[in-house]
Parts: sequence; structure tokens; C-alpha cells
Amino acid sequence: MKIQNKEYRTIWYEENVVKIIDQTKLPHQFIIKDLKTVKDAINAIKVMEVRGAPLIGGTAAYGMALAVQENNDPEFVKKSAEELIQSRPTAINLKWAVDRMMKKLSGVNSDKILEIALNEAIEICEEDIKFCENIGLNGLKIIEEIYNKKKDTVNILTHCNAGWLATINWGTATSPIYHAHKKGIPVHVWADETRPRNQGANLTSYELNEEGIKNTIIADNTGGILMQRGQVDMCIVGTDRTLSNGDVCNKIGTYLKALAAKDNNVPFM
Amino acid sequence: MKIQNKEYRTIWYEENVVKIIDQTKLPHQFIIKDLKTVKDAINAIKVMEVRGAPLIGGTAAYGMALAVQENNDPEFVKKSAEELIQSRPTAINLKWAVDRMMKKLSGVNSDKILEIALNEAIEICEEDIKFCENIGLNGLKIIEEIYNKKKDTVNILTHCNAGWLATINWGTATSPIYHAHKKGIPVHVWADETRPRNQGANLTSYELNEEGIKNTIIADNTGGILMQRGQVDMCIVGTDRTLSNGDVCNKIGTYLKALAAKDNNVPFM
Repeated sequence: MKIQNKEYRTIWYEENVVKIIDQTKLPHQFIIKDLKTVKDAINAIKVMEVRGAPLIGGTAAYGMALAVQENNDPEFVKKSAEELIQSRPTAINLKWAVDRMMKKLSGVNSDKILEIALNEAIEICEEDIKFCENIGLNGLKIIEEIYNKKKDTVNILTHCNAGWLATINWGTATSPIYHAHKKGIPVHVWADETRPRNQGANLTSYELNEEGIKNTIIADNTGGILMQRGQVDMCIVGTDRTLSNGDVCNKIGTYLKALAAKDNNVPFM
Repeated sequence: MKIQNKEYRTIWYEENVVKIIDQTKLPHQFIIKDLKTVKDAINAIKVMEVRGAPLIGGTAAYGMALAVQENNDPEFVKKSAEELIQSRPTAINLKWAVDRMMKKLSGVNSDKILEIALNEAIEICEEDIKFCENIGLNGLKIIEEIYNKKKDTVNILTHCNAGWLATINWGTATSPIYHAHKKGIPVHVWADETRPRNQGANLTSYELNEEGIKNTIIADNTGGILMQRGQVDMCIVGTDRTLSNGDVCNKIGTYLKALAAKDNNVPFM
């Protein structure tokens, strides 16, 4: 998606380094940072230079490629995998991506190991983009339906940042919004500030602004009254992990908005 | 209640001026400010040097006394009353106190008018203290009951500041907590930060600390998961106004906590 009118992804490999957008500096500074070693990747996850379950997965995958690039001794690669998995507790994509990389790399003993690792990291990221695009196309139908009934701007509340900055591109919760905007449907987003780390205020609003989508940052306390007053047509949030019984774990505060949506018959996705 | 181990009220009259604690400076600085004119009182309400429905009422009452002290011409007093009422939109105590002062002062044409005004302002404040004390004695029974069952620290969640700083003394939501603490019941308070103005972080935690009551400031998003995990024994909040049907208007975000309390069978007062 766009930053300063240029298309970016949140992570890519270029001239032997992995490039990320340092998300701790947004919205005030747009800085592209180099990750040269697996330690850099671990640190980027720990200090939240990258965050969001899918992007953490992507960074872990590229982190494994960096480990291989540094030292393809199986012991080092294994230890790197373990350290990567420890770098953040919640996002399931982290362990998933590391395990997938390890499966691909185990037993590989050729000088192609770096190429194999990089291709798998790229594949993981491309798959994620495809997932996000499909979320967008499915969610677009819901937004279109609301718009066709309402014939006026569709107001969408979101919590935290499940935007393209949390993924590789498109985002999860924001993907339907971007797709609707591209199709010319007028949308306005209520972006929960998302205390204590303010990802809504700092990231969601920033990325929506860069794509030219109307949005308002609100205190986390505000969503309830907006729903009571009919000023929210739908809520859409991310999920750090989804359980087989349908339960979702996501950023603290998601639950409170879900309760308010239920109490006011607002669709909550 | 205590600040720096000395007993205070939030408002009092001394040597021809009304004294208040400048609550915009808390918790970083403890400053007692002089209100010399009705304009000072209006400004104090507008910029939230005083806040909380009962204290706004008390300040409005003393503001009327200041108006009379300045100029007891009925036109000036009437205009002052109107300006006071306009100074803050939500707190019902504001209009109520001004109307009560006007009723007392209307037709009074003696040089005792200032004394009458001051006595009525004092009376309004004393009544409020009595209300708060009664809330405390009633609420104490609920806390005691929980404690007698649990035999361990009672965890109480509150939103915003309905503490003694919001009233003249004791507070509304905090009064049962102070009464319980004085009776030796171990209590711990989850103080919602209360965005966007942070009254929980800046005021509730401050006044509880000054009284030696254990408390933790939490992001407004946190209450839901604490209730899900059984870490909240009861919620108690203030009310800006209470309707005859039982509905309560209070600081934004109160509704979300009430929904979570209902969903988790946590008593919500």
C-alpha cells in the first residue's frame, strides 16, 4: 500500500539485507531499517519495530533466512529458530513460520540453502498477501451490502492496527476497507486509539491517511456511545489467534467493543 | 481526606477568597488556588481546575457568593448565575446549586446578603459531605460482605475520578473504599486510566495513594479481561446524573465496563 504516494510492502529482501519499516517511529518519521542478522530480526520483533501477527510471521521467516546467510551450521540455525520463537508471546504466526522454515531447511546440505530459505520466506509472505486479499474481497461484499442499504458513508470501527502495516500488504481488518475505497464506496473509519501502545492512533490512522481514507482517532472509551447512537455500521478487528471453537484472541480491549456491538446489534467481524 | 498527611476539603472560604486545589496540576504539583471573583469560579469550572459533579456544584455555590461579594446588584447576580450555568454542560449539580443559591438570594436586600450566600454555599457543601458519607456507609456493607466470603483482598474497579477530589470530601464511588480501608478491610483498586483526560491515572490513583490505599492504574481496555479472570470483585463508579428510570449518565467508557461486568456477573454499582 502507499506511503508518501509510493507503493511499499512492510518487509522485503534487497542486497543481502532484510528491509523493514521501523514502526516504532511512525507516524512521526518514516524510516526503512536494515536487518542484517537473525539477532536484528529478533530485536525488531521484541522492540516492536515490526508488529502484527502476520508481519511477525514474515519477519521470523526472513529472520531464519538471515540465520542461514550468517552461518548455515545446523546447530546455529536450530538455536536461532528457538530464539526467534521466544521473541514475542502472543502471535501464533511466529512459531508457525519458524516451524515451516525449519521443516524446509532440515537436512538441506547444499550451497543452495540460502536460496531455499529466501524462497520459502518470500512464499510465506506471498501467501499472506493472498490471504489478506481474500479477506478484503469477502469483507468488501459486507461493506457493499451496508452501503447499498444506507446510500451514505459506511462508518467502520476498528481496534488496534490490523492494517497493512500489521501484515505484508492490504492488512486483515483494513483489507475490506481498502477494497471498498478502491471501488469508490465512501467509508469513514473510527480508529480506536488502543492504549497502552496507541497502535490505532499511531499506525491505523497513519496508513489510512496515506491511502486517503477518512478516519477519526477516538479514545478507547468512545466506541460504546457511538454504537448506541447508530454512528457505527460495522466493527472489524484483527485476530492474534483464532481457536477451533471460534474464540478469538486479540489486542486487549477487543472484548469490550464486541460486547458493545452485541448490545447494539452492530455487526462485529 | 489527606494530602501529604494533612486533612483537606476540595473547596473552602478563607479571608475573602474561595480556595480550591488546582486539579489540572495533580498529581505532579499540589497547588491551592484563590478564586476572588465569580469569573474566577467560572474559569475554574471551564478549565477543569475543579471537576466532578458535586464539586462543580460546590464551586458554583461559592461562585454565587463571590458574585454577591463583588457586586450585589440583582442584575449582576442574575447574569453571573446564567454564566455559571453555561460553564460546563454535563454536571446536573451545577444548575441545581445555582438555582438553589438564586432562590435563597432573590429579594434579599440587606447587607447580610453575603453572609446569607456564604452560609448557603457552606450548607450545600456540608450536605454533599453527608451524602458521600452515607454512600460510604452503605457501600461499606457490600465490601464487607464480599470480604467475609472471600477472606482476602477485595479488588474494586473504578472508572474516572468519583473520588473525594470530585466532591467536597469522601467522594462518591471512593467513599465505601475509604470507609472499608478505615475499618481495616484489605482493598485494592483497579483505577481505569480514563482517556482522554486521564482522571483515573492523575486523580484517583493520587488520592488513593495519599490515603495509603493499594491501587493499580490500568488502560481503559483492561477491565474486561480482569473481570473474565475473576480479578475484579466489584465495580463502583460515579454518576454525573441519574434519571428517574434508573439510567445513569457518567464519564465516557462507563457503559463498556458495565457491559463487561454484566457478562461476567461482577456487581456493578
